Amino acid sequence: MRMSRYFLPVLKEDPAEAAIVSHRLMLRAGMIKQSSAGIYSWLPMGFKVLRKIEDIVHEEQQKAGHMPMLMPTIQSADLWRESGRYDDYGEEMLRIKDRHDRDMLFTPTAEELITDIFRSHVSSYKDLPLTLYQIQWKFRDERRPRFGVMRGREFYMKDGYNFDLTKEDALHAYNRHLVSYLRTYERMGLQAIPMRADSGPIGGDDTHEFLVLADTGESEVFYDSAVTDLTFGDREIDFDDKAQCQSIMEEFTTKYARTDETHDEAVFNEVPEERRRTARGIEVGQIFYFGTKYSDAMNAKVQGPDGKPVAVHMGSHGIGVSRLLGAIIEASHDDKGIIWPEGVTPYHAGIVNLKQGDEEADAACEQLYKELTAAGLEPLYDDRKERAGGKFATMDLIGLPWRITVGPRGLKNGVVELTSRKTGESTEMTPAEAVARVKDIYAGA
Amino acid sequence: MRMSRYFLPVLKEDPAEAAIVSHRLMLRAGMIKQSSAGIYSWLPMGFKVLRKIEDIVHEEQQKAGHMPMLMPTIQSADLWRESGRYDDYGEEMLRIKDRHDRDMLFTPTAEELITDIFRSHVSSYKDLPLTLYQIQWKFRDERRPRFGVMRGREFYMKDGYNFDLTKEDALHAYNRHLVSYLRTYERMGLQAIPMRADSGPIGGDDTHEFLVLADTGESEVFYDSAVTDLTFGDREIDFDDKAQCQSIMEEFTTKYARTDETHDEAVFNEVPEERRRTARGIEVGQIFYFGTKYSDAMNAKVQGPDGKPVAVHMGSHGIGVSRLLGAIIEASHDDKGIIWPEGVTPYHAGIVNLKQGDEEADAACEQLYKELTAAGLEPLYDDRKERAGGKFATMDLIGLPWRITVGPRGLKNGVVELTSRKTGESTEMTPAEAVARVKDIYAGA
Repeated sequence: MRMSRYFLPVLKEDPAEAAIVSHRLMLRAGMIKQSSAGIYSWLPMGFKVLRKIEDIVHEEQQKAGHMPMLMPTIQSADLWRESGRYDDYGEEMLRIKDRHDRDMLFTPTAEELITDIFRSHVSSYKDLPLTLYQIQWKFRDERRPRFGVMRGREFYMKDGYNFDLTKEDALHAYNRHLVSYLRTYERMGLQAIPMRADSGPIGGDDTHEFLVLADTGESEVFYDSAVTDLTFGDREIDFDDKAQCQSIMEEFTTKYARTDETHDEAVFNEVPEERRRTARGIEVGQIFYFGTKYSDAMNAKVQGPDGKPVAVHMGSHGIGVSRLLGAIIEASHDDKGIIWPEGVTPYHAGIVNLKQGDEEADAACEQLYKELTAAGLEPLYDDRKERAGGKFATMDLIGLPWRITVGPRGLKNGVVELTSRKTGESTEMTPAEAVARVKDIYAGA
Repeated sequence: MRMSRYFLPVLKEDPAEAAIVSHRLMLRAGMIKQSSAGIYSWLPMGFKVLRKIEDIVHEEQQKAGHMPMLMPTIQSADLWRESGRYDDYGEEMLRIKDRHDRDMLFTPTAEELITDIFRSHVSSYKDLPLTLYQIQWKFRDERRPRFGVMRGREFYMKDGYNFDLTKEDALHAYNRHLVSYLRTYERMGLQAIPMRADSGPIGGDDTHEFLVLADTGESEVFYDSAVTDLTFGDREIDFDDKAQCQSIMEEFTTKYARTDETHDEAVFNEVPEERRRTARGIEVGQIFYFGTKYSDAMNAKVQGPDGKPVAVHMGSHGIGVSRLLGAIIEASHDDKGIIWPEGVTPYHAGIVNLKQGDEEADAACEQLYKELTAAGLEPLYDDRKERAGGKFATMDLIGLPWRITVGPRGLKNGVVELTSRKTGESTEMTPAEAVARVKDIYAGA
């Protein structure tokens, strides 16, 4: 993409309405624009990152054997009456009457609808196990939306639902989700720690929240510092292997890590004192096993191996896709702007032309642009007639991990400069070396 | 994907509620399930095709230089009051009150919101031309939703908006959209004919609808049969080249082709009689140039080259993404089921094992599955213990363009059978040849 053609409305001033850094930076970097309280448009740069995060979630869910589908945003109130949640949900549910005066709502979650789909089409234990998921817009009519996309009203969420014959199978589905989530977050450059949590309005006994440590987090968390040493890395996972998934679940959840809702001072005090930590965390996902809560209420049964009807064991599993943009920025920025992890960066490298209009500099930039594109990468070329300082400030603000700076002086010596956004370190090298270096960096990502 | 693990709830019986073939086949092939009147869930197979169509639209729009973004589904009524459409829109608009009793609505289209984004961020003619688009869920509260996804209430639409300094530039944007749409539909195996149309509630003088000829179409159309001989093919397009886009626009719109709304008997009668056709058509897209209608109403001006403020010239351009699934099926099916064009098929080839459990047949199927997958293709392997007739009927119903049939008898002679869904023609060949053949077929797609 060439900056001269891009719609990237960066703001020079800090917007007054933004109380936290991710909100401020997303507005300043021209990623989002508020359209109503807690409701945002995603401008091209914001949409590009949103889509990258969505793609990672899709890939990891499908590796785990879960099937993508899509449920509508507007649903009938009837199913929600069947489960009893229509009245329970309170004012956060956006209730709607259609032209025929029927009660509808904007889906805040989809346990009821997916259970209805299941009971309509699945009648035998032979069709189990089954895990379906979607990435779809949700709405929760927060009384006081704030923090940009972190606590918006309309938000993009991955929600997955497993259907299993036994509790044991459903707990395997739970573990499968936990494992796939660990990898998902790491690919985005995030450490998200699974913490024992409270089930809230979804219901159920077993639940973990995934939290990213950040000062601006909404939850107080308590943990054994040893959990932050755990990394998932490139493990080969067989998602059908119950023992393997179980052992990874245990590895990542045995050490103390809880939100304030489930915090237990006595158990926490068993952690060696030097490893006890209190911090704040941003919730970026949650997994639940809730047994037969919905299948009982909505009569979702299959014929078991002995011919008798069995209520299926279920769980639901969410990732806050739009919220993740905020969480990633909270975890990765400095006073100049965003620092995108390579896994989710909107463009792989920026090209800054120090002297637009200089024949050699223009040609060198075009060549870099062409070669990076040919390598399957997406460069963002700042080809505007602006002074270098302004171009650097924009690049730092929008946070691409790598910048190639091209100017007449360097080109006289046959070199350009490759700069890391994270460390600020610059290295001179030939344009060909810069291309090779950037290709190498992303080859593993 | 292995059928034994797939969620593909095919129906044996014709559903009573389906009045047209695409609706019937989408229900029978387990692609969609109605959740309320005119509102559908997209089951895994339906979602997969929806996503393929969405991807094609994204690719072709970006080739044309248009920038993807995303606007929210729930919008404030205020902007719609500013344009005057809040009252005009009537009962098809889904109106909502949030918890603070503010008037909101579910977006049926987004001229107002995009114009607001534009006027907030763009102030100079130097930032033009600009074309932004989104693919987002829309809602129109049809009084009598019918025909499945063809006239649903919640539907997925690509809507794009151009902002230009002059009428001439805006007409180039119009032509660019026309050209990119021609290629988009052809990639989906559709002939969609641009026809002079009526602008309806969007407003404006210049507008073409894209129509797919089909007996079940909602519009009566009149055309010179010579328009159906035009094909877009693999032309190299420079979307910045005004003359090239203009000449393609003329090539595809000069011959008589109109909907009943703009039909002119006198002009039609100038077409040689043997080429005059009357038929029915399904609308799958529409492009508009409406000048300064919204920029005047909403004060969207830029500073022109002479320093004076100029209201921008705009147009909007839509593709009915979810509706396209219905249109493709209406145009491509037989009495056994769907016949997917190769560009949008959910899986590239089906593998039917005639004798599940037979050691050699199972091994040959696994090998085919492995090799097709390694080639970057997605096979659907029917590995269920079912009789061959049932497997064939399912494959015909879901309509994958190619089927590889594997049985012990053929394998004795070292062959499998490759069958075209469209022609029914079968050819025996070695498994390696079948893989090479299928790879070849999709290499060009």
